[in-house]
Amino acid sequence: MERIYLDNAATTPMDPLVLEAMMPYLTEKFGNPSSIYSYGRESRLAIESARKTVARLLNAHPSEIFFTSGGTESSNTAIISAVRNLGCKRIISSPIEHHAVLHTIEYLAKHEEAVIDFVNILPNGHVDLDHLRELLNASTTKTLVTLMHGNNEIGNLLDLETVGQLCQAHGAIFHSDTVQTVGHFPFDLRSAAIDFITGGGHKFHGPKGVGLLFINEKNRVEPFIHGGSQERNMRAGTENLYGIVGFAKALELATANFEKDSQYIRGIKQYMLEKVRSEITGVSFNGDPEGASLYTVLSVNFPRSEKSEMLLFNLDINNICASGGSACTSGVETSHVIKALGESDNKATVRFSFSKYNTKDQIDCVITKLKGLI
Amino acid sequence: MERIYLDNAATTPMDPLVLEAMMPYLTEKFGNPSSIYSYGRESRLAIESARKTVARLLNAHPSEIFFTSGGTESSNTAIISAVRNLGCKRIISSPIEHHAVLHTIEYLAKHEEAVIDFVNILPNGHVDLDHLRELLNASTTKTLVTLMHGNNEIGNLLDLETVGQLCQAHGAIFHSDTVQTVGHFPFDLRSAAIDFITGGGHKFHGPKGVGLLFINEKNRVEPFIHGGSQERNMRAGTENLYGIVGFAKALELATANFEKDSQYIRGIKQYMLEKVRSEITGVSFNGDPEGASLYTVLSVNFPRSEKSEMLLFNLDINNICASGGSACTSGVETSHVIKALGESDNKATVRFSFSKYNTKDQIDCVITKLKGLI
Repeated sequence: MERIYLDNAATTPMDPLVLEAMMPYLTEKFGNPSSIYSYGRESRLAIESARKTVARLLNAHPSEIFFTSGGTESSNTAIISAVRNLGCKRIISSPIEHHAVLHTIEYLAKHEEAVIDFVNILPNGHVDLDHLRELLNASTTKTLVTLMHGNNEIGNLLDLETVGQLCQAHGAIFHSDTVQTVGHFPFDLRSAAIDFITGGGHKFHGPKGVGLLFINEKNRVEPFIHGGSQERNMRAGTENLYGIVGFAKALELATANFEKDSQYIRGIKQYMLEKVRSEITGVSFNGDPEGASLYTVLSVNFPRSEKSEMLLFNLDINNICASGGSACTSGVETSHVIKALGESDNKATVRFSFSKYNTKDQIDCVITKLKGLI
Repeated sequence: MERIYLDNAATTPMDPLVLEAMMPYLTEKFGNPSSIYSYGRESRLAIESARKTVARLLNAHPSEIFFTSGGTESSNTAIISAVRNLGCKRIISSPIEHHAVLHTIEYLAKHEEAVIDFVNILPNGHVDLDHLRELLNASTTKTLVTLMHGNNEIGNLLDLETVGQLCQAHGAIFHSDTVQTVGHFPFDLRSAAIDFITGGGHKFHGPKGVGLLFINEKNRVEPFIHGGSQERNMRAGTENLYGIVGFAKALELATANFEKDSQYIRGIKQYMLEKVRSEITGVSFNGDPEGASLYTVLSVNFPRSEKSEMLLFNLDINNICASGGSACTSGVETSHVIKALGESDNKATVRFSFSKYNTKDQIDCVITKLKGLI
């Protein structure tokens, strides 16, 4: 039974071309990038070339691009830096953020380093921008706004430009968890009003264990990890050389193939949406799947029954990989995101998420299975 | 001209068997370890098996083993946790620690989170244990002692057992930067009086971008990275799956071959020491190279001359990789470690560091070159 992998928002397989680019650095090109001899300088060159590539693709300056161990570290760092170094004592966020954001701001609130306000979420999963404006108008202290670009569970896309301008007009710092969108959408950071964005290599066919943190050059923050001059003195420690090379290669491939891949994947999502709607009764969708939404994510509510409660397990038995919420909260409990949408508990939610490696045949197969399982 | 790599304290080539163990996780076994379906559980199993392997090899409990992005992150985390979570308001360290330790404690001192006392270093590079005892006796507040096990520049080995017992007797927390010794010496953490140790995979033929943090189970600390249940809720973010698998495999190989490899490498070091001493006039050695010392590191002072000032560059031209100090401070400036030994500036210091892949033929070749370059 062929495995059907529909959990690409959790992680993606590496593109063979990415691994190919990494292989020299996993084998003979192992020099420490901080060593001064030519063999080390070759590694330094590989890292700085990767940084330039990433900067060029996102239209940022290389000095604004930092490589970390992953998207979660990046979001932690951005938020903690905004509070401790940029003087933000108030945080505006939303109840449907990833835990990488929610747990970090809760930690800061617990230690009385900042207070939190949550912006309202509309029934379709979008951020209530009027409420955001009200909250910003009511700010009497320097504020960090942290709102994700593409929601990992329901797919909703934030209008980065509007929120960025709103933040700028109010002198607020703006961080966006862009882990689901870097490598999936074009970015133009030079002309965006944004202070921090974050990315994780393994979300777009790059390696695990490597992430991106963009820090707008106007923000001066303290080192995140102390002890060496790596990453312009900001993140000490011998670099994940092959990870960084792989990250840049994956972003390069994603950008080069964006039109083709995004159109193809959008087609797969739309095909599944229509099939689910027409062939399974009583389903609904979370978020705004045919509006401003990730083309990679489809969140489906199935009517709760004895059978649908076991849906994820039964999909697994049929070698179909899908998730209840994010991978990080993939238990059978209703996720904090679905709860925040006010959905009743009387539904079984499954997130299907797609990549360039999925096919309509796979979707047909999943639909057939689903009909048997509901 | 064959490259002769004598900078194994900076980084080591991956053992082909390590890469072989990693390859399935770089290709088909890519599931997110936090996903609940079987494909994700396979990844979870790989990580927890790696943790058990590492715990067994170091004689620790799996719950005491945390995987990080590298040794520097691990040391940062250990020290910051000791100060912020375990109440250490005083830090005793030494002036010859790695910057991963020195910069972290300086950061904490600058922010008035702790005060620092430095223990004296004896002329042979060893920690003055009488002075350490005096400093501990004079402690009126809870103290963190952070002293490295094997010095990365001069090779001196600390007596972990004695220092551990001293710390225990004084109720002090003991962290040791063991980045140069994990994978090079046996550890028995169950019977050691030690609170934190750290390791980096790439120092013993494992992958870059993955490290170890051992936290003695008696210490309760806050999460280092917020946002998910990974690493027992302590370090959120999708794990560096292949890195973790590679780390465990490298430690397994290092432990299995310890007697053979250490004896072999010790022979290489001793051979070079004797050759340098007998064939080049005016040399001296830093540290205690024939006493309590890493068998991997030999730090040589050459008489300073117009020629020797260019020694590292000329070695590089001859395709010989060696370093002035640590890779992290590998400029031509005299390193903080050599300065702390009170060595005059009238010497050119080169660190040669060895691995199982070096041969006596390579040493002969280097000696011949050195004679021409001095």
